[in-house]
Amino acid sequence: MATVAARTAQRVLASDLAQHTGEQVRIEGWIHAIRKFGAVNFLVVRDRSGMAQVVLEPEDVAPLDGLQVETVVAVYGTVEEEPRASHGVEIRHARVEVISPVTDVLPFELNKKKFKPTLDVFLNNAPVGLRYPTRQATFRLYSDLLFGFRDYLDHRNFVEIHTPTMVGAATEGGANVFQLDYFGRPAYLAQSPQLYKQIMVGVFERVFEIGPAFRAEEHYTVRHLNEYNSLDVEMAFIESFHEVMDLLIELLEHMVQTALERHPHDAELAGMQMPRFGEVPRLKFRDAQRMILERYAEDRSNDLDLSPQDERWIGEWAAEEFKSDFVFVTHYPTSKRAFYTLPDPEDPEHSLSFDLIFQGQELVSGSQRVHRYDQLLQIMEQRGMNPESFAGYLQAFKFGMPPEGGFAIGSERLLMRLVGAENLRETTLFPRDVNRLGP
Amino acid sequence: MATVAARTAQRVLASDLAQHTGEQVRIEGWIHAIRKFGAVNFLVVRDRSGMAQVVLEPEDVAPLDGLQVETVVAVYGTVEEEPRASHGVEIRHARVEVISPVTDVLPFELNKKKFKPTLDVFLNNAPVGLRYPTRQATFRLYSDLLFGFRDYLDHRNFVEIHTPTMVGAATEGGANVFQLDYFGRPAYLAQSPQLYKQIMVGVFERVFEIGPAFRAEEHYTVRHLNEYNSLDVEMAFIESFHEVMDLLIELLEHMVQTALERHPHDAELAGMQMPRFGEVPRLKFRDAQRMILERYAEDRSNDLDLSPQDERWIGEWAAEEFKSDFVFVTHYPTSKRAFYTLPDPEDPEHSLSFDLIFQGQELVSGSQRVHRYDQLLQIMEQRGMNPESFAGYLQAFKFGMPPEGGFAIGSERLLMRLVGAENLRETTLFPRDVNRLGP
Repeated sequence: MATVAARTAQRVLASDLAQHTGEQVRIEGWIHAIRKFGAVNFLVVRDRSGMAQVVLEPEDVAPLDGLQVETVVAVYGTVEEEPRASHGVEIRHARVEVISPVTDVLPFELNKKKFKPTLDVFLNNAPVGLRYPTRQATFRLYSDLLFGFRDYLDHRNFVEIHTPTMVGAATEGGANVFQLDYFGRPAYLAQSPQLYKQIMVGVFERVFEIGPAFRAEEHYTVRHLNEYNSLDVEMAFIESFHEVMDLLIELLEHMVQTALERHPHDAELAGMQMPRFGEVPRLKFRDAQRMILERYAEDRSNDLDLSPQDERWIGEWAAEEFKSDFVFVTHYPTSKRAFYTLPDPEDPEHSLSFDLIFQGQELVSGSQRVHRYDQLLQIMEQRGMNPESFAGYLQAFKFGMPPEGGFAIGSERLLMRLVGAENLRETTLFPRDVNRLGP
Repeated sequence: MATVAARTAQRVLASDLAQHTGEQVRIEGWIHAIRKFGAVNFLVVRDRSGMAQVVLEPEDVAPLDGLQVETVVAVYGTVEEEPRASHGVEIRHARVEVISPVTDVLPFELNKKKFKPTLDVFLNNAPVGLRYPTRQATFRLYSDLLFGFRDYLDHRNFVEIHTPTMVGAATEGGANVFQLDYFGRPAYLAQSPQLYKQIMVGVFERVFEIGPAFRAEEHYTVRHLNEYNSLDVEMAFIESFHEVMDLLIELLEHMVQTALERHPHDAELAGMQMPRFGEVPRLKFRDAQRMILERYAEDRSNDLDLSPQDERWIGEWAAEEFKSDFVFVTHYPTSKRAFYTLPDPEDPEHSLSFDLIFQGQELVSGSQRVHRYDQLLQIMEQRGMNPESFAGYLQAFKFGMPPEGGFAIGSERLLMRLVGAENLRETTLFPRDVNRLGP
């Protein structure tokens, strides 16, 4: 290994090496693997663009003794064709310079085809575990999904907003809310930006927000966490809640398309494919129960909500009858939805609400909202809510709110389903649950 | 006013009316103003695109009695040329349909040239106050700044991340941190995503995050809030911290340019102009003190930080000597910066840190970071910090971290300065301070 040399040449990324065939280059990255075969030895260097193979001549081998994987290095050498290497080239006549030494041994191997740690071991060591190529790929796709989300909405005149996380009253009711000390009085972490995005629809008609949402759920499940990144959309001057569902489907398709186009190699690594959209069916809650009775011989007619098994059956029905991985269930019982959900004027016991079921599991909830001030006050009274706790929210309605609706997508849950992960903790960078507050 | 009619025609936005001259159209929005002149009367209808003037014939006037501004209406009529109206057209032969009635009187007028409420009255009534055209414009520009931020970074291979808000240990030290009850144990609201974005640089090399940051500051100032939206950037394999500053300046220029190009009319309304970038000077902390002594005859040589007056003088110097609204102060005393700041190897009492001063006030803080594990441990020991509280963070460094640096922009503060607001509360949708937890 050489001493530090003047870095005259620009760094070349692994993915660009083939454009520099025959040239002297410098690459920089992490030692992903060290392969000693006696006469010929290799380093695999990983950077943000991929892997580069470095050939080490016999005289270069000795200083590699004791070198650990994940050491950060600069490699100087000549790019030469090698069809068996990734990108069809490798670096020969190499000189390796250590930028950041590593002296410890990794808690698990990052350079094997199969990634072996249990979920708990992985999560405890996420700061290095996330470097594993399929994990990297998963979260690069996550970034792409967010890009697609904004890109779609931006082209349709939606305005991005950021509303407070610390609030004076619980948004969705008092249960499952984290409380904090706010200069001697209680404050709460927002369970959603619901009330703020509705207020802002009165300003911009169309808004979206990307931000954390909090639920103090005490139970451990594979698809719930205590903090998640919510993708919230709200739109005004709708003529029907079907417009909201139309937009949601187009939006999701655009998000996945964006990720697949921007990083096809990552999509392959992480196992993300375009789901089947087809003509997404829309099934009323009561009709879903009827379908379950007819098709699966289970009488759900007294239930006010769908069970996980019901959702799986509905997903199966949509896949078989409509060749779609998605299905909307609409018109849930009004009593089971939040106070801001608009009751169906033709059947007030049911609401203009929907859940989008993706491959047999709920992914998105949404609805048309109550937009008339008098109706909102009446509903709050019926539900025993105190209008004074919602004074700011109600002011927006007192001064004219158009017909509007929206939805919220749990972003990590969408990613989980798209890559076929079994646990939401696999698609959340640093998950928070009742047992886990770190790293 | 007519009864509800079938909405056969597509809604037309106010800004698109001129394209429909001579046609029957439907517009929808809020009644922004009602102007009764006897024989000829006007409604001004506001939608997300702007204003539309509606002429009401004498026979239509009667039903307007008692109608309040901000009522949500649909208006059916014919588009005709009228050079004196906005967009050069107005709607005649109009029929007005009330969608959401308003019966109360606004707390302040939204349709006057001058917006009169005091800041406190405005903030107490923000849900309607934000509808005032210059306020709308301000926050539409905010959305554009965020768009420009991502757009710039996306084109340079930065990956968007979302890291936890609830953390087990205070990021920047124990003071000024909000504490919450996390299932019976204490948790804290992140003061910044600093440690996580550094960990993620070990995965993606280049990352950014947009999300809330929290400071439990007990004092009221015009430029601090207890929750703000932080724009965090971190980049690896830098050869010098000047690369980080280069990127920051290009990024800011792109952000403002984006806003000005996307919404020039809003920029005019809100008073946003392109600041003078010029050749942004970079002044070492010690040299800044020397300049102040020479130019302003004040001896600051014993100070370890800059006062607000110092920053104003430095800004004045940059404006006069470099025709720039920006100036970097670099090499702050190491003891006054966070533990992760890299001491200058040639002068360890000073650090490879910078603040960007914009028109005489600090706007952005950043630095090159300590990237070697051994050095990081040594610094933590010197500062009396417990490495076990930072185990996850340290793991990333134990397993190889490249030279890296980054910065954080307070997004609402940037907006405040760009539109020349006097208080951060004017450029934050729903601000949080020691006295204010709502709306």
